[in-house]
Amino acid sequence: MANGGVVTLLTDFGLRDYFVAAMKGVMLSLNPDLVFVDISHLVPPQNILSGAFTLGQTWALFPLKTIHLAVVDPGVGTARKAIVATAGGHLFVAPDNGILTAVMESQEDFKAYEITAGHYFRKPVSDTFHGRDVFAPIAAWLSRGIPAEQMGNRLQEPVRLKMPVAKKVREGLIQGAILAVDIFGNLITNVKPSDVPPAFRFILPGQREVTVIRRTYGEGKPGELFIVQGSTGYLEISLKDGSAAALLDLKVGAPLGVAAV
Amino acid sequence: MANGGVVTLLTDFGLRDYFVAAMKGVMLSLNPDLVFVDISHLVPPQNILSGAFTLGQTWALFPLKTIHLAVVDPGVGTARKAIVATAGGHLFVAPDNGILTAVMESQEDFKAYEITAGHYFRKPVSDTFHGRDVFAPIAAWLSRGIPAEQMGNRLQEPVRLKMPVAKKVREGLIQGAILAVDIFGNLITNVKPSDVPPAFRFILPGQREVTVIRRTYGEGKPGELFIVQGSTGYLEISLKDGSAAALLDLKVGAPLGVAAV
Amino acid sequence: MANGGVVTLLTDFGLRDYFVAAMKGVMLSLNPDLVFVDISHLVPPQNILSGAFTLGQTWALFPLKTIHLAVVDPGVGTARKAIVATAGGHLFVAPDNGILTAVMESQEDFKAYEITAGHYFRKPVSDTFHGRDVFAPIAAWLSRGIPAEQMGNRLQEPVRLKMPVAKKVREGLIQGAILAVDIFGNLITNVKPSDVPPAFRFILPGQREVTVIRRTYGEGKPGELFIVQGSTGYLEISLKDGSAAALLDLKVGAPLGVAAV
Repeated sequence: MANGGVVTLLTDFGLRDYFVAAMKGVMLSLNPDLVFVDISHLVPPQNILSGAFTLGQTWALFPLKTIHLAVVDPGVGTARKAIVATAGGHLFVAPDNGILTAVMESQEDFKAYEITAGHYFRKPVSDTFHGRDVFAPIAAWLSRGIPAEQMGNRLQEPVRLKMPVAKKVREGLIQGAILAVDIFGNLITNVKPSDVPPAFRFILPGQREVTVIRRTYGEGKPGELFIVQGSTGYLEISLKDGSAAALLDLKVGAPLGVAAV
Repeated sequence: MANGGVVTLLTDFGLRDYFVAAMKGVMLSLNPDLVFVDISHLVPPQNILSGAFTLGQTWALFPLKTIHLAVVDPGVGTARKAIVATAGGHLFVAPDNGILTAVMESQEDFKAYEITAGHYFRKPVSDTFHGRDVFAPIAAWLSRGIPAEQMGNRLQEPVRLKMPVAKKVREGLIQGAILAVDIFGNLITNVKPSDVPPAFRFILPGQREVTVIRRTYGEGKPGELFIVQGSTGYLEISLKDGSAAALLDLKVGAPLGVAAV
Repeated sequence: MANGGVVTLLTDFGLRDYFVAAMKGVMLSLNPDLVFVDISHLVPPQNILSGAFTLGQTWALFPLKTIHLAVVDPGVGTARKAIVATAGGHLFVAPDNGILTAVMESQEDFKAYEITAGHYFRKPVSDTFHGRDVFAPIAAWLSRGIPAEQMGNRLQEPVRLKMPVAKKVREGLIQGAILAVDIFGNLITNVKPSDVPPAFRFILPGQREVTVIRRTYGEGKPGELFIVQGSTGYLEISLKDGSAAALLDLKVGAPLGVAAV
C-alpha cells in the first residue's frame, strides 16, 4: 500500500533533543518509503512569523505532491486547530496558527481542512507533543494516499498572519521593515527592486543611511555596508566580511525608509 | 545482495566536522540502499547517560528491523568492548558502555553480542574513530542480513548505567531528580504521574516550590512556572515563554522532592 | 530517465536558514530518486581552506559515482568560475576557488570543466545564490547521466590552495602547523607519524611543549595534554576531558615544531 514521497520538516525543535527523530520514526513506521528533507529545526522558538518566511522561501522548489510538515506550535494542546492544506499541487500539515501564511498569500487555490480524524492519530495523544502524535501520523497517511478531505471538514478562515508589507508613504518615500536576518547577518528587507525609484537610499533608525548598491556580495569593498538584491527577491543590507545585523544592531521588525536620491 | 533498511545515528560528534558523514559514506559503500535518520549528534560530549535517555525516547518509534547506531564513546580504542544487540525486533550497534541502558531496562528479550568479527571492519582501524572503522561497517553488514550472532559471542553482562529512579521516602514524600533538560529549557524529571498523590507540589533545592499544574504549555500564564506532563511520559517543570532551567539554575541530576499537599 | 544516486552537500550556509533545503528541493524536482548526505553546513563562513579539509576527509568513503556538491562561495556572482570535476570515479560540483584542493592533491586523474551550459540553470539566476540556481541543478543533471564534459570546456588550471605542509627544517626539527580544530577541541596538525623521529616532542608558541604520546583518547590521564594519532592520519594534540584548543589558545594556522628528544 505504501509508496514513496517527500516530506519536508520545519520546526523550532532544535537539533539536540529527540523530537525530530520521534516524528520521523512515527512516519517511517507508517510508510517506510518516505524521503525526508529537513528545511530547518532552528526556527527561533515559537516564532511563527519566522517559520512562515522560511517555508515561503522553499516549499515551491520541491516536487509536486511533496508534503510539508511545519510544526512551530506554541499553542500545542490548547484549542488551536490542526490543519491539512492543499495549494499549488503540494500538501501541508501544520497547526492553524498562521505558519502557512506565505503559502496562502501566493496560492489562490489554497484550501485548508481541520484535522479531526482522530483514528489516524498515535495513541495516547500527548498534550505537549502533537508533532509526534498528530501531525506526523497525518502526514504519513497523506503520503499513503488518504486525501486531505478525509482528515476533516473544510476550514474557511484559517489563521493568517500580517506579513509586513512595504508601503509608499508619499512620492519618493517608502516605509519598509526588516523581514528576516540570515546566518551571515544579512538584513533581508520587505522591499523589492520593483518598489524603489531608479536612484535610492535606505534610511535606518538613528538617521543612518545605506547608499551603496552592489550586484553581488563579492563586489562589496572591505568593511563596506551595501544594498544587494538577495536570493529571496527582496533587497538586503549586507556588510562585506561581517554581519550587518550586528554592526547596525537591527532585528526582525525594525523599520526602514527608502528615499529617492 | 544489498537491500534497504533504516539506520538511525546517535552521537556526540557535533554537526561541524566530517565524523558523521564519514560513517554514512562507509555504510553507503557497503549498502547503497540504506536510509539514514539522525536522532542527534549533539549529545553533550561523552555524556553516555544523556545519550541513553535520548535513544530510549526514540528507538521504539521506528519500524521493526531498524538498526540503531549509537556512538558516544569516551573509551574508544581502550579495552571497552563493542557490541551488537537485539531487542524488541530492532538491532543496536554501540560501545559497551551503558548507552543502551534504556533499551535493556524496557526489553526483556535484550541480547548482546561482543563484536569480534574483525574481517568486517574498515582497515586500518583507527584507534580514535571506531565510529567509522568498526561500528559503521558492522551496521552496514547487519543491514545486508548478516545475523548479530555472527559478529561475536553472546555477552551476558553488558554495561548498564544506573538511571536515577524516583523513590518514595515516606508516605507523601517522593525523592526524584532532573533527568534531562530539553532545548526549550523544560526540566524533565524522573517522576511519573502515577508516582504522585492526587494533590502535590514540587520542592526544589533552595526551598523553592512549584505548585501550579497545567495540562499544556499553552495554558501557562505569562512568566509562570508550572508542572506539566511531558511527551516522555514524565512530569516536567516548564516556564511560560522562557527557560525553566535558566530561571531555576538547575541541571541534570539536581534533586527534587514531591510532597502531598 | 531519472535514477538514484548519492549527492553529498558541504556548505557554510548554516542550519537555520532555507538555503540548504532550497538546493535539495531544486535537485529533487529534477531527480526525485536522489539520496542526500550532508557532510557539513557549518564550515566557518567563507573559509574555503576549512571546507577543503573537511571534504578531503570524507569524499573517498562514499560509493563510486557519488556527486559531491561543495558550496563555500564568497565570490558568488563575480567573475569566479563554476566547475564540474571528475576524480577517482566521483563527481564534484563547486565554485572554482580551491575548495577541491584536497581532491586534486590526492587524485592524478582529476579533471575540471568550467560550467557554461546555462540551459541547465534555474532561471532567473540570482547573483547571490548560485547554490540554488547553478550548482544544485548541475548536480541533478549529472545524476541523470549528463556527462561532465557537456557542462563546459576543460579547465586546465583550476584554482588550487596552498595546503600547509610539514617541512624538515634541519635534522631533528620539523616545522608544522595546526590544520584544523575539531568539535572536541582536538588540534589536528599537518604532521604525520611517518614524518617524526622515533622519540619526539611538540614545541608550541610561547615555548610550551607537549611530550606525552598516547594511542587513544581514553588512555590520557585526567587533565593531561597529549599527542595522539587521529583518525585523519595526522597527529593531534588532545586534552583529556577538555578542549586543547581552548587551553592552549591555538587556532588553525598556528605554527608548531617537532623536535627529536
